[in-house]
Amino acid sequence: MKRLTIIIACCILSMNSFAQQQLGQRPRVTSPVINQDGTVTFNFYDPSAQRVSINGDFEEIRNQRLNMTKQDNGVWTVTTSVLNPELYSYSINVDGQRFIDPANSYVNRDIATLSNIFIVTKSTDDKGHLYAVNNVPHGTLSRVWYDSPTLGQQRRMTVYLPASYDGKKRFPVMYLLHGHGGDETAWGDLGRASQIMDNLIAEGKCVPMIVVMPNGNPTCNAAPGWWHEGMYTPDGNAFNQRGAKASMEESFMDIVNFMDSHYMTIAKRSGRAVTGLSMGGGHTFGISRLYPDSFDYYGLQSAAARVQRNNAKFEEQMARLFASKPKLYWIAIGKDDFLMQQNTDLRQYLDGKGYKYEYYENDGGHIWRNWRIYLTMFAQKIFKD
Amino acid sequence: MKRLTIIIACCILSMNSFAQQQLGQRPRVTSPVINQDGTVTFNFYDPSAQRVSINGDFEEIRNQRLNMTKQDNGVWTVTTSVLNPELYSYSINVDGQRFIDPANSYVNRDIATLSNIFIVTKSTDDKGHLYAVNNVPHGTLSRVWYDSPTLGQQRRMTVYLPASYDGKKRFPVMYLLHGHGGDETAWGDLGRASQIMDNLIAEGKCVPMIVVMPNGNPTCNAAPGWWHEGMYTPDGNAFNQRGAKASMEESFMDIVNFMDSHYMTIAKRSGRAVTGLSMGGGHTFGISRLYPDSFDYYGLQSAAARVQRNNAKFEEQMARLFASKPKLYWIAIGKDDFLMQQNTDLRQYLDGKGYKYEYYENDGGHIWRNWRIYLTMFAQKIFKD
Repeated sequence: MKRLTIIIACCILSMNSFAQQQLGQRPRVTSPVINQDGTVTFNFYDPSAQRVSINGDFEEIRNQRLNMTKQDNGVWTVTTSVLNPELYSYSINVDGQRFIDPANSYVNRDIATLSNIFIVTKSTDDKGHLYAVNNVPHGTLSRVWYDSPTLGQQRRMTVYLPASYDGKKRFPVMYLLHGHGGDETAWGDLGRASQIMDNLIAEGKCVPMIVVMPNGNPTCNAAPGWWHEGMYTPDGNAFNQRGAKASMEESFMDIVNFMDSHYMTIAKRSGRAVTGLSMGGGHTFGISRLYPDSFDYYGLQSAAARVQRNNAKFEEQMARLFASKPKLYWIAIGKDDFLMQQNTDLRQYLDGKGYKYEYYENDGGHIWRNWRIYLTMFAQKIFKD
Repeated sequence: MKRLTIIIACCILSMNSFAQQQLGQRPRVTSPVINQDGTVTFNFYDPSAQRVSINGDFEEIRNQRLNMTKQDNGVWTVTTSVLNPELYSYSINVDGQRFIDPANSYVNRDIATLSNIFIVTKSTDDKGHLYAVNNVPHGTLSRVWYDSPTLGQQRRMTVYLPASYDGKKRFPVMYLLHGHGGDETAWGDLGRASQIMDNLIAEGKCVPMIVVMPNGNPTCNAAPGWWHEGMYTPDGNAFNQRGAKASMEESFMDIVNFMDSHYMTIAKRSGRAVTGLSMGGGHTFGISRLYPDSFDYYGLQSAAARVQRNNAKFEEQMARLFASKPKLYWIAIGKDDFLMQQNTDLRQYLDGKGYKYEYYENDGGHIWRNWRIYLTMFAQKIFKD
């Protein structure tokens, strides 16, 4: 009996949707709509769909579904509760299939998956405003190919030059490293790095600086589609170090040397910072041990940074690093991050040795929302003394 | 009776799909698959969908639908006939709704609509190869903000520097203009300009040059999402000249002056070319009349370029332009282009006056496939004497 009900329901829905498709004019749909009251409404036209939902990273649903309701005109709709200022990601699920919202052309790519984005902002001192394009001077964002003799490759990276870069004055450089599965586009797109830097610099909250976002995968020259391997579909395991001539850390000074020879950099320790998230935090940890005299500021964000116990070389590197007195050794991580234990171990090790560092802990896990916050904080801590 | 058959068919399809969703493991889908024999297979998993098709710009279907067939595992599939080498665009239609193929993260944006792309290439001298990222030296692609005193704005443009640009040697500059509804990202994304230039330069088919792709909408500072107006949804009529302080043509030398003062350009007539498509072809036409001594090479691609009858100023401008003996005045258009009559009128006018130009006509209409061909041809014609 229950099955029969379902069958009949299906028939009615199917007929209904066919009729609507034939009869109705296709309504014009705007989505998302950021409402005056701080809620956000999603709209999606599909008279024949049976279940439609929004999957987003809004706080109140925490990566779960927000079910949409079908209206008489075939438009499904749902309105969130009031959202805090933030850059949000979402996709639309139609009868079990994940899609991009056809009404929203703003997307970010994370590895091989596209998600829609939108920004909620309420005042000029909130995160949404910081991540938005505002009416301020804008830096130049370039995709640059550099030569890496260590890796035997031409490699692609992203270079941000501040609006005041004129080819005459020298600027300090922040090297900003992505995580596993990411590439040289990650910090600019998912991390909103150029908007954050434009806005912080315009507000006088950070020093004008060059930001270099290299590709941290030594077996891969460039982001998917920008490498001569073609339009392949990467997955989370697409890039590992098997077959690489050297590691990211070992080849890192190729990037620094390229920057110092091609741009007006402050080519010394006091003009260099390096920070990265997850795998890039691990790279930062490695770089700090390999080249302790080359950088004055380090930022480990949700870092894959493991203490190497009973390893004399590691101990020696760490001793030399902290003997060199870096101006900042910063560790930042969210309470729910799966790398929390590694970072706790690292802090205990540093505490035990009396090595000086700063620590920041906030809510949340291993997510871009946190990495944008860490970039914002780190950028304001460096090159000021 | 027919209706009843449809109803029963709906029921069977619906039950079948529910059962599969509950039972089956979600198959891993790759799409598109470019087959060895030159055909292309699209795959899409959706056990509950009733009709799925691919809408693409493949020659054999000419913007019509390619219906997909559902397999037992819930994966819909269709294979094209053999496709010629080309960059193709498509979307997927599920029960009447247009979506991006969830298995393909490569997309282009045209105004506010995203479409998937893929490339078919068979040999190193076909169009597909020319549009692909190959293992050749790559130029730098930058998003640059310049000051336009004429428009009273900071404005965004795209600048391509050839791989051999080193800040010491001077290079000629091609100004490459988009059409109505486009922006400073159009030629790079839809036009594959950086790939075409990298490949032509690597093959020695064109002179290494700087390519400048400005935003041709004088009421808009930058592409959607990169302007402080926010993440608005543009339509084809979003950008007109109402309220602009000046036209694109009137403000154009602001761009040239910026390039000459910020880059190592050959800052004279013999080092400057200007070309554009549709509205940008019209801009090229206007620029050629306003600044006849500033450019030696002009390319009107599918141009909105109307002869102004009984207009003394127009006659005088045209006379001065051709008296200045530009090295190239090139008109290119497809047989099916809706602007063919305007271009025929223009050619008749030029013929009547004895003004020297070159003409190229090919198949097809007002489409990016043709503009990529015209860019490829124009780039090989300039700066060689």
